[in-house]
Amino acid sequence: MSCDYKALANKGVQGLHPYQAGKPTSELERELGITNIVKLASNENPLGVSTKVKKVLAGELDELSRYPDSNGYYLKSALAEQMMVKPEQVTLGNGSNDILELLARTFVNDSHEVIFSQHAFVVYPIVTQAIGATPVAVSAKNWGHDLDAMADAITERTKLIFIANPNNPTGTFLTSKALRHFLEQVPEHVIVVLDEAYYEYVAKDERAPSVQWLSHFPNLVVSRTFSKAYGLAGLRIGYAVTSEEIAGLINRVRQPFNCNSLSLAAAEAVLDDTDYLTASIEINRVGMKQLTEAFNAMGLEYIPSHGNFVTVDVQTNGAEVYDALLQEGVIVRPIGGYGLPNHLRVSIGLESENQRFIDALKKVLQLP
Amino acid sequence: MSCDYKALANKGVQGLHPYQAGKPTSELERELGITNIVKLASNENPLGVSTKVKKVLAGELDELSRYPDSNGYYLKSALAEQMMVKPEQVTLGNGSNDILELLARTFVNDSHEVIFSQHAFVVYPIVTQAIGATPVAVSAKNWGHDLDAMADAITERTKLIFIANPNNPTGTFLTSKALRHFLEQVPEHVIVVLDEAYYEYVAKDERAPSVQWLSHFPNLVVSRTFSKAYGLAGLRIGYAVTSEEIAGLINRVRQPFNCNSLSLAAAEAVLDDTDYLTASIEINRVGMKQLTEAFNAMGLEYIPSHGNFVTVDVQTNGAEVYDALLQEGVIVRPIGGYGLPNHLRVSIGLESENQRFIDALKKVLQLP
Repeated sequence: MSCDYKALANKGVQGLHPYQAGKPTSELERELGITNIVKLASNENPLGVSTKVKKVLAGELDELSRYPDSNGYYLKSALAEQMMVKPEQVTLGNGSNDILELLARTFVNDSHEVIFSQHAFVVYPIVTQAIGATPVAVSAKNWGHDLDAMADAITERTKLIFIANPNNPTGTFLTSKALRHFLEQVPEHVIVVLDEAYYEYVAKDERAPSVQWLSHFPNLVVSRTFSKAYGLAGLRIGYAVTSEEIAGLINRVRQPFNCNSLSLAAAEAVLDDTDYLTASIEINRVGMKQLTEAFNAMGLEYIPSHGNFVTVDVQTNGAEVYDALLQEGVIVRPIGGYGLPNHLRVSIGLESENQRFIDALKKVLQLP
Repeated sequence: MSCDYKALANKGVQGLHPYQAGKPTSELERELGITNIVKLASNENPLGVSTKVKKVLAGELDELSRYPDSNGYYLKSALAEQMMVKPEQVTLGNGSNDILELLARTFVNDSHEVIFSQHAFVVYPIVTQAIGATPVAVSAKNWGHDLDAMADAITERTKLIFIANPNNPTGTFLTSKALRHFLEQVPEHVIVVLDEAYYEYVAKDERAPSVQWLSHFPNLVVSRTFSKAYGLAGLRIGYAVTSEEIAGLINRVRQPFNCNSLSLAAAEAVLDDTDYLTASIEINRVGMKQLTEAFNAMGLEYIPSHGNFVTVDVQTNGAEVYDALLQEGVIVRPIGGYGLPNHLRVSIGLESENQRFIDALKKVLQLP
């Protein structure tokens, strides 16, 4: 009389692996008997939250018994103004993860294929498989997207293509020219999601004019987040810029209160805080130099990165080096699950945090 | 060469109506030229946020550049302890809306039927239709669930049943005995979601021992929220209690960071704040008496409610009365969309707010 609920779940769900969550740093410290752990594992902003944001949030706490503004009126207006689009072209998400999932749920069903690159963000195959659609992972070229091969992989069943630029976890970057050439080859009925979570870290003269492209490519979706350069990962807020038509469709599927009140207020405040953004970008530039110079000195190869992290080849099992670094009180990200078993992804931290990592890595790898 | 993206969306999505969001109160005040609007429209807690919660949140703002704890370790532990279940039986959601949607996405596909009651929460048909499944709305009995008719509606295609207890927007309530009798009739392969968003407002001796029932009914899901009696609607946090097996399945589909850091911290803090919960329940009891006595005096019939709101028959078009009340600076909820065109749903507010509504309603209905 007992029932197998796994067998009752949708087929795509049965094949999903339960997400293995890390423990809170406080728990880890307790278990390892270590204090002052340095966390360079999640591509978070080492500057902490903008002071302006904290002030705004402190003033919003009294309102938390009220539901959020379902439409995100003020934040959408501010984003639209900054990007010179209509507010109706902006969709807000509970982090850009929510946006990526909503797009799949709006357009994809179990008869479709979804294309993404090898070594690309793990959320792409997860949202694809949850729906029961067929994931098509195209082999990477120089650790990044092979756009020609991705264009060749398009079939009649293709409904969605995810492109991360810069790519996580490899940090690789596609030029405007290459991207535009790719978009010109994609049929209009295939949605292309350009995931620009790390957009703000790209040098201004190298950034693709992706939002401007929307008028030429009605099948384009630009996705961005406040979790990285804007330093709001804990609050969960991201957005998509699309045609009004696509925004209207995603909005039907979106939970009415997917974005919480504080995330809306914080994102609006930090959008205005150009000093914070400038400092985020600068500390990343300096820290990237610090880490890559150290790798060069250690004779370790790394993948040149356009994000707020860098992926280094430790020339041995990355998971073991990860464990050894943990004992030194430094958390980084092993990426064997991304098909890179000998690499570690390290987020750019403060100078002192980067140095803790460099010293620990030298010790673990027994380098001079 | 232009493409119809609506036609490209999944069939269920094409049939969804875009959610019509209300404007922020601040915008409404500006447009209407009114200040000091009283909002009794969203079943929010009129007490505002717990002082203890505000203190905890103020101390958490520095951490918001870090991702939330994906596993909600501390909150799940606290909930599990309070309910005497294992932490592995608890799943956290971005509000209980997230929980309801996750259940549908985990177990339901377009070949299935989902059963709920007429006049029940609008999210049930929305999550059903988004997947392309068939919604089965069973006619209500005395404004509430007709459990016998719902049991009769079960077919081989039925996968999920939603039951709201108390029900929103009617406030009707099912006894433990009636619910248990219903559960005994449902085959084990059909998931029953008992949506107890208003659970804390039910008198203690009338509450169903729903969590205890989990050991008898492996197909049962109990869903609750911190948005109502706990006063955290703006932060978005709810939860499901289920078997470990069902929790493991929902967790595969859940976005890894579906709950933000502040919602986790706030919910943990308010769970300990029994004074706040007691005050929430008491102000609701007093306000319910105030409103229903006024309705009696006005000769208006209302549906006896077990929630933090009451639904009143205004004996004329509710949408027009809603508009007229708005001009008086009072927002309530017209529920024509729920099949109740002559009713208005009024949330229980503070004594002064309730009085503002009563006075405005008398004026609008031209009652003495």
